[in-house]
Amino acid sequence: MGFRTAILGATGAVGQEFLRLLDERQFPLDSLTLLASKRSAGKTMTFKGETLTVQEVTHDCFDRIDLLLSSAGGSISKEFAPSAVKAGCVVVDNTSYYRMDPIVPLIIPEINSADIANHQGILANPNCSTIIMLLPLWPLQQALGIKRVVVSTYQASSGAGAQAMQELKEESLAVLNNQDYERTVIPLPYAFNLFPHNSDMLENGYCEEEMKMMEETKKIFKAPDFKVSATCIRVPILRAHSESINVEFEKATSVEDIYSILSSAPGIKVMEDRAANRWPMPIDVSGKDEVLVGRVRKDPTQENTFEMWVVGDQLLKGAALNAVQIAEAL
Amino acid sequence: MGFRTAILGATGAVGQEFLRLLDERQFPLDSLTLLASKRSAGKTMTFKGETLTVQEVTHDCFDRIDLLLSSAGGSISKEFAPSAVKAGCVVVDNTSYYRMDPIVPLIIPEINSADIANHQGILANPNCSTIIMLLPLWPLQQALGIKRVVVSTYQASSGAGAQAMQELKEESLAVLNNQDYERTVIPLPYAFNLFPHNSDMLENGYCEEEMKMMEETKKIFKAPDFKVSATCIRVPILRAHSESINVEFEKATSVEDIYSILSSAPGIKVMEDRAANRWPMPIDVSGKDEVLVGRVRKDPTQENTFEMWVVGDQLLKGAALNAVQIAEAL
Repeated sequence: MGFRTAILGATGAVGQEFLRLLDERQFPLDSLTLLASKRSAGKTMTFKGETLTVQEVTHDCFDRIDLLLSSAGGSISKEFAPSAVKAGCVVVDNTSYYRMDPIVPLIIPEINSADIANHQGILANPNCSTIIMLLPLWPLQQALGIKRVVVSTYQASSGAGAQAMQELKEESLAVLNNQDYERTVIPLPYAFNLFPHNSDMLENGYCEEEMKMMEETKKIFKAPDFKVSATCIRVPILRAHSESINVEFEKATSVEDIYSILSSAPGIKVMEDRAANRWPMPIDVSGKDEVLVGRVRKDPTQENTFEMWVVGDQLLKGAALNAVQIAEAL
Repeated sequence: MGFRTAILGATGAVGQEFLRLLDERQFPLDSLTLLASKRSAGKTMTFKGETLTVQEVTHDCFDRIDLLLSSAGGSISKEFAPSAVKAGCVVVDNTSYYRMDPIVPLIIPEINSADIANHQGILANPNCSTIIMLLPLWPLQQALGIKRVVVSTYQASSGAGAQAMQELKEESLAVLNNQDYERTVIPLPYAFNLFPHNSDMLENGYCEEEMKMMEETKKIFKAPDFKVSATCIRVPILRAHSESINVEFEKATSVEDIYSILSSAPGIKVMEDRAANRWPMPIDVSGKDEVLVGRVRKDPTQENTFEMWVVGDQLLKGAALNAVQIAEAL
């Protein structure tokens, strides 16, 4: 009655969340197979009290798998997703590799779950910063129409994987103890420091992470001219992304109307306490499913324009949770 | 031949930088008096190899002082600056208290040093985030005209003082060691966390720190309709502020023209290495005088609009250095 499910990249930061979510959400499993690259094969992980051994991914390992949750990096998805599809498996891919492929649906279930039915074997999970931004923007786009978005992100180490999270902690400890530390994952000093996202730079001066937010939004919203300008910054935070968003609407509106629209939208929660001066923070959402929105205020410098502040767990709604929701919708 | 100079708030984060800068820049001193609130009186500090004892500030302590560098908080400036002026002292005030007073010049020497001559005893040093933003915006305002700015900040703990810097380190160490930690300065969890600036909220939904950036800019640029919308966020960084700035210009321009304008402007330095993907970071400017600018790119979503990334030391150009430069210009 359930799915024979495999997790590719099971030992990674997102992979670990997949395991937790499949258990917690009582995902209908017939079997669970843990896959990873050769490096991680042989490791063991616990699921519902059972010890599972991670197996090396190979091209012929998908015969008895119905559903593959893939989160082991773009090059691994590129290599193995076609073999999985050939074996009859449906792939929910959490890497960037297939996202902009026109035949691959790019899904945030709260926004475009109807597109899931169009899949030809592969479904893509959007970039984490894109998901966190679009959850609050989608109900506003429907109700008010959005003319233009300017967004600056505050992205956590988890976006660079479990090792980056560990490295941030180790480097911070070394700095606090006045010790040297040799980084091997993050290419730039990260403890008590921040830096523009280190993905590849494009000719236009934006980096790939920024272009993902700008281009994936157009595909998910089915709005080829949708306007987003993004600045992506890595901050020394463990697992939640924050975003400062300036939105210009087509229609006139008010802070009250925006909060009313956001309050009834799925997947997000308004956190707004002006009296206590208390707003969404990364530790509020770490390990939580919901994306928090607050600090909605009218931008006095331009008509129909508002500022807002959005925070979401990068590993959950930004990655594993969204992918599991796609699988559930299947 | 020199100034009989006093530092009020000598033991604070900015006060310590004052001491270092007066020595390093060979400021013409006839004498140096260290002042602070009762709590810090009696402490000793070293200046040019001499041990100086911090004295308690009183209303009649300014008789033999020509210049007061004040950085002990708005309420202290409010109380003691008038007494200093009455005693014939010129006050360079680093607090927010007098900044928007119409008879007090608000000075960034690279921008409006001509206004220094109009002082009536008190000169104000702008907010740190304002100074760091305006150094690159001023030459662009002159050359191209600025229609509108949207800015998101990444502000360091130093803006909340020396104790906040220490608390960030101690709380981070406690988190890394899984220990409890009792915060006494910063009201919100700060280690591996971030939060919207905790200054008071105004009716319009902006906080005071944001309004400082928006209002001080108008005064410094002598442009009462200048448009800035700001989002101010505290990040777990020790002493440098970063800012993601989206600027709409009146005139058409190009990335090359902007870099050319910025390259010949005082107080800033272009740091732009697309090949190495290396951009300004807080640790690049910590302890440095210059404000770094990079990541200038054309925003494809709006005509004549560009993104840029600016980083400056909050304690130096954001505070003590700017104040000492004002004093030098006197």
